[in-house]
Amino acid sequence: MKLVRYGEAGSERPGMVGADGKIRDLSAHVADVAGAALAPQSLAELARIDPATLPPVDGSPRLGPCVSGTGKLICIGLNYSDHAAETGATVPPEPIIFMKATSAIVGPNDDLLIPRGSEKTDWEVELGIIIGKQAKYVSEAEALDCVAGYCIVHDVSERAFQTERSGQWTKGKSCDTFGPTGPWLVTKDEIPDPQNLKMWLTVNGEFMQDGSTKTMVFGASYLVSYLSQFMSLQPGDIISTGTPPGVGMGMKPPRYLKAGDVVELGIEGLGSQRQQVRADG
Amino acid sequence: MKLVRYGEAGSERPGMVGADGKIRDLSAHVADVAGAALAPQSLAELARIDPATLPPVDGSPRLGPCVSGTGKLICIGLNYSDHAAETGATVPPEPIIFMKATSAIVGPNDDLLIPRGSEKTDWEVELGIIIGKQAKYVSEAEALDCVAGYCIVHDVSERAFQTERSGQWTKGKSCDTFGPTGPWLVTKDEIPDPQNLKMWLTVNGEFMQDGSTKTMVFGASYLVSYLSQFMSLQPGDIISTGTPPGVGMGMKPPRYLKAGDVVELGIEGLGSQRQQVRADG
Repeated sequence: MKLVRYGEAGSERPGMVGADGKIRDLSAHVADVAGAALAPQSLAELARIDPATLPPVDGSPRLGPCVSGTGKLICIGLNYSDHAAETGATVPPEPIIFMKATSAIVGPNDDLLIPRGSEKTDWEVELGIIIGKQAKYVSEAEALDCVAGYCIVHDVSERAFQTERSGQWTKGKSCDTFGPTGPWLVTKDEIPDPQNLKMWLTVNGEFMQDGSTKTMVFGASYLVSYLSQFMSLQPGDIISTGTPPGVGMGMKPPRYLKAGDVVELGIEGLGSQRQQVRADG
Repeated sequence: MKLVRYGEAGSERPGMVGADGKIRDLSAHVADVAGAALAPQSLAELARIDPATLPPVDGSPRLGPCVSGTGKLICIGLNYSDHAAETGATVPPEPIIFMKATSAIVGPNDDLLIPRGSEKTDWEVELGIIIGKQAKYVSEAEALDCVAGYCIVHDVSERAFQTERSGQWTKGKSCDTFGPTGPWLVTKDEIPDPQNLKMWLTVNGEFMQDGSTKTMVFGASYLVSYLSQFMSLQPGDIISTGTPPGVGMGMKPPRYLKAGDVVELGIEGLGSQRQQVRADG
């Protein structure tokens, strides 16, 4: 099942994408793709709906972030061995975690804004895990019971803010529009093996990242269990699981985004995103 | 003006504390101490209410976090020169920022839970700045226009999780109950100089921290302006501005919290908090 949120920013409505690729309105069944609607029983009830019986949505509305009410956007650093190598870092003994501000979350095709003073805005295609019910001190075996599904997260990163402006990565990860999320929340039944998904990213049509979640160091179940030892994970929280090789900072010479660029990215089974890059303010 | 949220966790009601120290119910005027209620005009309207005309609240209800709907709990690291010295670090050239999970936020007198596996849970009394209207690319001169008021934040920190478990501090800062906030949101008119407030913290009645915001390296206006260059600050966001000397990890030998301890902390004009420490789960 593919859940979406469509409409203008701040007033999105819930929708479901049928086998025909069309959006159907779901607001008679859930108020939003958020909170309790993400619980296992709620998703099971939604799965019994035949999309053809739902009101079709006309045209091609804007898509919002595929989940609302996200309290935490938790990211995993250096979680692909080959990406760690390209940045000159070594794979850590346990997951590196950091936060992206939830105010960075935008729709999958919204404009990507280069913040004032930025010269090193970089791209990172990532697999996002969306929490469906509270996870606290869960084992790896129980972890996926707490997962509603998956989505694409674009973990946009300003490398100078991240690494040259006094410690901690949050500073380069949290700028407005740095977290395009979606297009869909794809429920986990459609993604039987989250560790075998092709993923890619292009800038102006040129392939920059062309990897697979196969080379992830710490996988989805492990990450949910691991994080839940440090904090409770709540419905709507998103874990962005790290990026494969091919980021701009790893190129020789490094290459960064500039106004006018177009970034497209996708993950097998999770759809794709497209962002027009422009300067902020 | 002192705003509070009182009642059981998850169903708190807004209140105002009068000159007599008593809580009066404010729910006929605002739905919650959150979002648009924190805007300058809203606060000005609330300030015109005579607390004596509001319904008194019986007894001594639990207090919740003094603000609801916090999207970001942003912390400043090593922002007191003497605290930096006690931890063996040097004062950074610009603010160190990191995030605490908003799921760590609890009421000022709620129990403080030592997470499973923790041996180094430490205390940090901090001045919190509560955002009242969006701040993006604001100057230092404009910064306080975006501030609703101040509160106490207890930035509870697990030092092993923070520094010995693979990079980035978030891991040791985000455990459930690690962010007691309140008792009150004190509007900024009552705090004419946020850089001259005494602050203290005791464990089992013994003074551990006894400092002043005078020794803060980067002050409130600067921090709001600085942060707003990296991300937009939204109503209800809280900036926790760092701690003065006297944390457990700085002692010789280090000293940490254990079940049964009682922590009390306060800041001049902002009230005080009291937490009973117990083991989680």
